[in-house]
Amino acid sequence: MVKSVLSVIVVLVAVSSAFGEQYIPKSGKRIPQTLSRGWGDQLIWAQTYEEGLHYARTKNKPLMVIFHREDCPHSKKLKKVFAEDYDIQKILDEDFIILNLMYETTDKHLSPDGQYVPRILFVDPSMTVRAEIVGPYKNRYYSYEPTDLKLLLNNLKKALKLLKTEL
Amino acid sequence: MVKSVLSVIVVLVAVSSAFGEQYIPKSGKRIPQTLSRGWGDQLIWAQTYEEGLHYARTKNKPLMVIFHREDCPHSKKLKKVFAEDYDIQKILDEDFIILNLMYETTDKHLSPDGQYVPRILFVDPSMTVRAEIVGPYKNRYYSYEPTDLKLLLNNLKKALKLLKTEL
Repeated sequence: MVKSVLSVIVVLVAVSSAFGEQYIPKSGKRIPQTLSRGWGDQLIWAQTYEEGLHYARTKNKPLMVIFHREDCPHSKKLKKVFAEDYDIQKILDEDFIILNLMYETTDKHLSPDGQYVPRILFVDPSMTVRAEIVGPYKNRYYSYEPTDLKLLLNNLKKALKLLKTEL
Repeated sequence: MVKSVLSVIVVLVAVSSAFGEQYIPKSGKRIPQTLSRGWGDQLIWAQTYEEGLHYARTKNKPLMVIFHREDCPHSKKLKKVFAEDYDIQKILDEDFIILNLMYETTDKHLSPDGQYVPRILFVDPSMTVRAEIVGPYKNRYYSYEPTDLKLLLNNLKKALKLLKTEL
């Protein structure tokens, strides 16, 4: 009896060390972080600016960069309507390289009028920041409110048009 | 009868436009991308090098950077055992800021002996790249094989020790 209990223990130890124990934080199991950070789970996001530029060049598509913060109510409100907007999600999926960042990059061209959030900028495959594609606000050129999605969609189309006519 | 059918249609149209239609790619619904990219779904990953450095400074923890590629079989094999290793996942979760990158950064200090993958480097909160923390291979100092996880764990402990004694 002792022998069979021992062999069961031996087998259990062998099994658990073969499969290993999965690490679960003390605070409990977490939901894995997404690269979309809520801006569109169905889209394919670049992780970094370098990666975004690489894909923009190799796929000859404009890069859209969203700067936001998770503790910023304006970012959150814009994100919600942005993620739910069929037309914006579709055009981004089909024709753009996309990146959302919570931290500034070292490229100063991405903050032509400051480092506020939310802020949306476009970069051509030729690596030119399209500073002329602006939202409706004169104090913060690259910011959009939830009610400005129509204008944002027009700006997406503008970025595509510039790409076709100028490159 | 025609009237009631019409009013049902009107209601349906109103409902679908109020809630919007969720965008699903033509190729079918996708699984959202994770920031872990398979290196540990329970861990909290920085998105970019800038973000990683910011957290390293503010939380006074060393930053571990993994360079890898999804089409690299060595990266894949290392990732599998890495994600399943309880001790490594635990120490990373509790004591490190972590980042995994598929594209090189502009910081040349992160490639002291080249830009190969997989490659693991440590950066102190003081922004110093700890180039002295190396793996077992003399031709590629910062590479690890799946059988080198014990050494990697020791290197993690070394990074913590250097942090405590030198800062």
